[in-house]
Amino acid sequence: MKVGFIGLGIMGAPMAANLVKAGFEVTGHNRTMSKVDTLVAAGGRAADDVAGAVADADIVITMLPDSPDVRAVVLGDDGVLAHAREGTVLIDCSTIRPDVSREIAEAASARGVQALDAPVSGGQQGAVEGSLSIMVGGPAEAFEAAHDVLDAVGGTVVHVGPAGAGQTVKAANQLIVAGTIELVAESLVFLEAHGVDTEAAIKVLAGGLAGNRILDRKAGAMVRREFTPGFRVELHHKDLGIMQDAAREAGVVIPLGAVVAQLMAALHAQGHGGLDHGALLKLVEQLSGRADG
Amino acid sequence: MKVGFIGLGIMGAPMAANLVKAGFEVTGHNRTMSKVDTLVAAGGRAADDVAGAVADADIVITMLPDSPDVRAVVLGDDGVLAHAREGTVLIDCSTIRPDVSREIAEAASARGVQALDAPVSGGQQGAVEGSLSIMVGGPAEAFEAAHDVLDAVGGTVVHVGPAGAGQTVKAANQLIVAGTIELVAESLVFLEAHGVDTEAAIKVLAGGLAGNRILDRKAGAMVRREFTPGFRVELHHKDLGIMQDAAREAGVVIPLGAVVAQLMAALHAQGHGGLDHGALLKLVEQLSGRADG
Repeated sequence: MKVGFIGLGIMGAPMAANLVKAGFEVTGHNRTMSKVDTLVAAGGRAADDVAGAVADADIVITMLPDSPDVRAVVLGDDGVLAHAREGTVLIDCSTIRPDVSREIAEAASARGVQALDAPVSGGQQGAVEGSLSIMVGGPAEAFEAAHDVLDAVGGTVVHVGPAGAGQTVKAANQLIVAGTIELVAESLVFLEAHGVDTEAAIKVLAGGLAGNRILDRKAGAMVRREFTPGFRVELHHKDLGIMQDAAREAGVVIPLGAVVAQLMAALHAQGHGGLDHGALLKLVEQLSGRADG
Repeated sequence: MKVGFIGLGIMGAPMAANLVKAGFEVTGHNRTMSKVDTLVAAGGRAADDVAGAVADADIVITMLPDSPDVRAVVLGDDGVLAHAREGTVLIDCSTIRPDVSREIAEAASARGVQALDAPVSGGQQGAVEGSLSIMVGGPAEAFEAAHDVLDAVGGTVVHVGPAGAGQTVKAANQLIVAGTIELVAESLVFLEAHGVDTEAAIKVLAGGLAGNRILDRKAGAMVRREFTPGFRVELHHKDLGIMQDAAREAGVVIPLGAVVAQLMAALHAQGHGGLDHGALLKLVEQLSGRADG
């Protein structure tokens, strides 16, 4: 089966490599062409433009930063829908606004292409391991057709509803992830201020009802003040905007979501958009007068 | 080895039963004597008063609701320290203020008794399974002496520092647990409002970076609006007061901790103190105008 893959960043590159490993013929394209080299080294092919990646593909995957990028690459004059064959399944793994996913699904359908919104969670580590959690919205038959491809990059692949539903679940995911990082950050600064052994504390916190994947995967780096992404503050800031808009649209009040969105916004406003989202710890230190500078 | 156990409530009763199963001679006391029957049925003995539970004990465990209860039972005229033999190890598994734990450790030391503050996490299920997470503060030698007993009721048993340190870690634990319940509650109401299949969503959220023990153990009951405790709002409200005082004492600012403490306080003020803490979901519904009444 032939897969076209557009967007070979921190997440896209290891996902495309896992597809090659699983036996798919992968042709990749990236705006910055140098990033295609990793895919070629892994056994994939390079395409100079979107057309080259999608013209022969059975399945096209897009993994891009934000809604305008996806709209341009999919709906643009020289975009995916202009070149994809009828019957192609388009899997957008980007995290974007649910209404844009629905707009894309409609435009695709008009061209005989079935679209799935399939945002992922699990970070760079999950992308490398092929253990991503993938929340999929769109027609059930497209989900079936895409299942083998999704299984090659994901560990937990779940069809959650019609077009846009994947993005809605991803918005909830980003609310929980940001909130949990902040809860762990507040706890770590609190424990340090009390002189508690944080390594021992992380171990025992992880074993009880407070257990979560941030304690398992990120708390150690946070204690060491290692904020190399991983997942960048600027992207999580964007995702929390999507989450707040979607909550407002549904008339749902989210007090913790609102506060953590403001904290992430502060980190972004202070010029820390390029750091890992674990850097929320820096803000707790700053608020508490414990920042180094 | 003889263990005296005082406080046989939702948590204490199954912990005492697990000690009997592990081969310890357990003598239990509870203010409401009928609760001792479960322990006797499990193979333990009943004591009419604190003196009867502690006079022959090598190790005394207390598992009580709040700081004043522990102070009365341990420091009172007819309390644990008035009757315990020299060399006894006192393990207080209650969640109380760190300064009260330090006060008790000093009073115990003056009587030749070594005290550990050893609050637990994992809820009723963890108590029944013997899989509790136990955060222990106090002298290393007392921790060694108590290790077999703690292992019989806990799955993750960690010495985190001197007297009071167990309570400090437990305060962080209660911050993370309350905050995570609220994040899951906001997410579930948000997903329901968007018509997403919450069962599928919980599965995929649990598989990614948003994964946590609240999604694993409590989200299902929250979706079904089952709020039988479990762990009562009134106790978590008390614990968040301890957490806020301890953060203030250390000069640490905890924005999410402050908001979730207010939400728990609202639930308590509305007369829901007897419900499981998963009832934070009711408050999100109420705030969003989606409450049934």
